[in-house]
Amino acid sequence: MKQNRNVEFEPAGRKSNVESESTEVSFLYLSEDDMVDAGVQNAARCVDVMEEMIGLLEDGDFLMGGPYNDAHGLMLYFPKKSPIKNFPINNSRDRRFIAMPAYLGGRFHVAGEKWYGSNGNNRELGLPRSILMMMLNDVETGKPLAYMSGNLLSSMRTGAMPGMAAKHLAVNDAKVLSLLGCGVVNKACLMSIMTVRPDIEIIKLKGSSRTSKTALRMKEYIEDHYPGVKQVILCTTMEEAVRDADIVSEAISCMYGQWPEVKKEWMKPGLLYISSSTFNMEYSSIVDLKKVIDNYGMYENYAEEDELGYDENGIRKHSGCMGEDFVYMIEDGLIERDSLIRLGEIIRGKKPGRESDEEIILVSLEGMPIEDVAWAYECYSYALIHDIGTRLKVWDKPRAF
Amino acid sequence: MKQNRNVEFEPAGRKSNVESESTEVSFLYLSEDDMVDAGVQNAARCVDVMEEMIGLLEDGDFLMGGPYNDAHGLMLYFPKKSPIKNFPINNSRDRRFIAMPAYLGGRFHVAGEKWYGSNGNNRELGLPRSILMMMLNDVETGKPLAYMSGNLLSSMRTGAMPGMAAKHLAVNDAKVLSLLGCGVVNKACLMSIMTVRPDIEIIKLKGSSRTSKTALRMKEYIEDHYPGVKQVILCTTMEEAVRDADIVSEAISCMYGQWPEVKKEWMKPGLLYISSSTFNMEYSSIVDLKKVIDNYGMYENYAEEDELGYDENGIRKHSGCMGEDFVYMIEDGLIERDSLIRLGEIIRGKKPGRESDEEIILVSLEGMPIEDVAWAYECYSYALIHDIGTRLKVWDKPRAF
Repeated sequence: MKQNRNVEFEPAGRKSNVESESTEVSFLYLSEDDMVDAGVQNAARCVDVMEEMIGLLEDGDFLMGGPYNDAHGLMLYFPKKSPIKNFPINNSRDRRFIAMPAYLGGRFHVAGEKWYGSNGNNRELGLPRSILMMMLNDVETGKPLAYMSGNLLSSMRTGAMPGMAAKHLAVNDAKVLSLLGCGVVNKACLMSIMTVRPDIEIIKLKGSSRTSKTALRMKEYIEDHYPGVKQVILCTTMEEAVRDADIVSEAISCMYGQWPEVKKEWMKPGLLYISSSTFNMEYSSIVDLKKVIDNYGMYENYAEEDELGYDENGIRKHSGCMGEDFVYMIEDGLIERDSLIRLGEIIRGKKPGRESDEEIILVSLEGMPIEDVAWAYECYSYALIHDIGTRLKVWDKPRAF
Repeated sequence: MKQNRNVEFEPAGRKSNVESESTEVSFLYLSEDDMVDAGVQNAARCVDVMEEMIGLLEDGDFLMGGPYNDAHGLMLYFPKKSPIKNFPINNSRDRRFIAMPAYLGGRFHVAGEKWYGSNGNNRELGLPRSILMMMLNDVETGKPLAYMSGNLLSSMRTGAMPGMAAKHLAVNDAKVLSLLGCGVVNKACLMSIMTVRPDIEIIKLKGSSRTSKTALRMKEYIEDHYPGVKQVILCTTMEEAVRDADIVSEAISCMYGQWPEVKKEWMKPGLLYISSSTFNMEYSSIVDLKKVIDNYGMYENYAEEDELGYDENGIRKHSGCMGEDFVYMIEDGLIERDSLIRLGEIIRGKKPGRESDEEIILVSLEGMPIEDVAWAYECYSYALIHDIGTRLKVWDKPRAF
């Protein structure tokens, strides 16, 4: 019988779908409600699982797409215009589809894929901007194990990464947290950061404006859920939000090229600045800060695709992505490649994390499909044990054809 | 209300999932049995739908992955070996996972993705080598419309492409069909070709050996299903199988580099030689034959990835793929790029197909995700109208989070 560690999670007395010698193939369907029952919103657990995942990434115990094993995913690009009648065009924020396949090793030992479509206009329909579905597959046979709603899953895993970074890299007595962007992603970041930094007393919010609905909703949420927080400050400018912060969690959604600028002089010694979405800071002022990334190859891919050049004054253009900007800085000789520290190196004890209470640390985080696989597998395992979800058959016996 | 042509397929009196103003999201699950009920094995219809699809490809009314809109898919490559315990390795035929996203326009106007894992060792478990699942999504919102078993779907659409080629490009009185390879794919090719060329009288089979089980099973299948076929000949050599054939359908699965060679001198005037899988023919003997392809960009991608060079005698290596070899021939100046004719050009009447009963035509077909989307949409629409499948809810209202 082949080894498959999925079996660890099989409740006693229940025949494993994976181990079965029969030719039956079935999978577990988990709706959004099922995912909630399966613990998808457990931020503390998600931070732990992301830490496991980043360790396995460092070990090389994973696969992502493409010949270099580092693809974020494969995207359908919508054109800005088309002569073809009814052709879907890129006329809103984030209009795209992406397929994100991966395999994750260790106790996970499972393949999977997230597949989603995004359209900024969804909001008008009362739908989330992205609608995501997640699949898990037996890595040996390819059999589907689960098909699940991916919206909460995706937000939680994205938020858990800054939580993990804050756990390892913030100053010990971090008291002031600043959230740049008040959307779904930063809410998940908040949830994760608060599980690892319960001593936060002041939270600063920077929404699209001081009175933006999402910022006000975030303020209310914080006041309702975190009684230890003494003050929630709605900020008008980026400077106001960044000044005095011990931890900045950035998750701003904006049009290409319109990334709000951040300045080094606003940054307090000891600041941990985590970017999950957009970034725009003068190259020269980045040089001396400690730079931490999740996965170098992914940013190299971005840089290769974008091939950003220089403006008319010979100044390197910005990409809007922190990690990609680091790659350009290496290309331009501003920094050495080994000055970039991987989160996995810190988790595995190969390199130190924070080395003083004074140093400012920048962390660049981009979504990776192995994050989805890790958190999906955890929820799936919980659902299996607790009999959550709907089991659906693909076939009893595959047709001979 | 936004336009969505999916509505055409809504049975009267049933509220459309797509058009609904509610925030409810649900999708249709179709098992393998459901797919059969939904007509997935209807070869004649599938040939017609593939013809529609190839027309839309020619019109540019589609999207495939990547910045150049021509990606076959994104693959997880398994390493040949790994120092990591339990790491899944490439120790069997076709071990891989592939994600294949696409959008198809026209009356389809739908996005979708095929996701599958393959492992040659599956056979020992009584499972197909590949286990495929297919999704369809509303292209406007990203909402899932359907999740379906993809095995029959994938075989049928692959087989329908040679059917379509045979319809348009075989000599009028084609009597002798040769099947190189007797697996699932060539069975689907047979089914499709017989719907468009019912006058075939002799079928030659070339399996791995004269007495291979699959070849004998194919012979039996033909004798049971096609009473008009007067003779089924089991061949020992490629030469025997190719000689005298009016149509060759190649679908051979073999190890890399072990593609059986084909020679021009075996080819009868008027032969239509369709390659769906592997191909190995001396470059110089290809030059004067008519060359038809499905999609040039995809082969260019393959050539770019493989970067095949020359052997020690300065002779260009072979790729095992007909279309990719055509790309190398262009690079080497052996042929002009516009000597390659797209199937879509023929379907749209831009270029002639067969111009004489004497010319030998080579056709290269590789799987494209728009084929899956087309055939999946057709089966899904049929299932909707006939109330086949299981409707599953993702949410009534998305969680505010």
